Amino acid sequence: MEQNKPYPWSSCGSDKEIAGCRFSLAVMSDQYVDKILGALGRVDTSHVWSATDLLSTTYRGHQTNVINTVKDLFVEVNDGETHITLEATLSKGCPGDVEEDIPMKLAPTKVVSASKKFPVHVKFSFYPMGEGDYMAHIAHIVNLAIDKGIYDRPSHYATQLYGDVNELFDYFHDIMAYSDEHLDHFVYQITLSVNSPSLR
Amino acid sequence: MEQNKPYPWSSCGSDKEIAGCRFSLAVMSDQYVDKILGALGRVDTSHVWSATDLLSTTYRGHQTNVINTVKDLFVEVNDGETHITLEATLSKGCPGDVEEDIPMKLAPTKVVSASKKFPVHVKFSFYPMGEGDYMAHIAHIVNLAIDKGIYDRPSHYATQLYGDVNELFDYFHDIMAYSDEHLDHFVYQITLSVNSPSLR
Repeated sequence: MEQNKPYPWSSCGSDKEIAGCRFSLAVMSDQYVDKILGALGRVDTSHVWSATDLLSTTYRGHQTNVINTVKDLFVEVNDGETHITLEATLSKGCPGDVEEDIPMKLAPTKVVSASKKFPVHVKFSFYPMGEGDYMAHIAHIVNLAIDKGIYDRPSHYATQLYGDVNELFDYFHDIMAYSDEHLDHFVYQITLSVNSPSLR
Repeated sequence: MEQNKPYPWSSCGSDKEIAGCRFSLAVMSDQYVDKILGALGRVDTSHVWSATDLLSTTYRGHQTNVINTVKDLFVEVNDGETHITLEATLSKGCPGDVEEDIPMKLAPTKVVSASKKFPVHVKFSFYPMGEGDYMAHIAHIVNLAIDKGIYDRPSHYATQLYGDVNELFDYFHDIMAYSDEHLDHFVYQITLSVNSPSLR
């Protein structure tokens, strides 16, 4: 392939132990600024590195802490009425990533503070990188959702899930655990949706 | 790796010529339902297969028609005031995809009807699937954005772009052209943002 230029990043990869989630919250309300910034501000982010830019917020750290902090945020922002989506890229092992943006706690210290239950619709895609056998890994992950009873339906370019928020985030932890064991670099892209008017 | 169960899809892959885009529009306004459904309804979708479900809308067909139809939609939904995001998964060549959901026109017939100009912020990730040398392909795609003057900044898990809507969609066409030549299966994930209050 053509690659005559230098890589547009300078690092040779970050510590394999650093997981991360870059997410964008969308709140379908005139009060979206207060709702988004309010929820981001109320969540305990002391167990992750956190930064918000124009397009999204990123949490980095131990995979358990990252997922639990995203879960706390999603529970915090859901008022049970407003249609809200959270679109997120979860990743670990990227060779182009950097180790900057620390400190972060690289041990599973973050316990989920939220204990609410509510149904969530999800679209989900899993990308094992650099793997010739990637479709088998994807199949394993989708079959895991079927086994857990949160598989809703297939669709073009994504699998659709439906379940309680706690079941879904448990599944996201399971994906991390499987991927850590079997893959060097993986990404999963999710969109969570609550209170959609399509359900009324 | 473990893979004792059958694949959770039945097909052996769709025609390599079928590209697709699954996207979710988010409109930060109390009038989001009318704005989203209005724009979806006004756009000429006669050059693609189109379906809307609870979470997103999918366009499928020739890559030129898919990208041009998404562009028309994004131009249509942007009223120049409301903060709106469009999160999209563009893909071609998935071995687990199916050829159902036709007819669609597999020739580049869709001319963009919109001619507006407005600035767009983008986060963007490129995933070449099944390629050991995937980082080199990603580097090529990011360098292409630098050459075109739409590269804004690096960030964890995504590259950030900034430019006129026409420049950005031209780049999305370029990615398709490069990937068609060099890759069997690829996905790129983009989030477009307009009228963000963070810019005021």
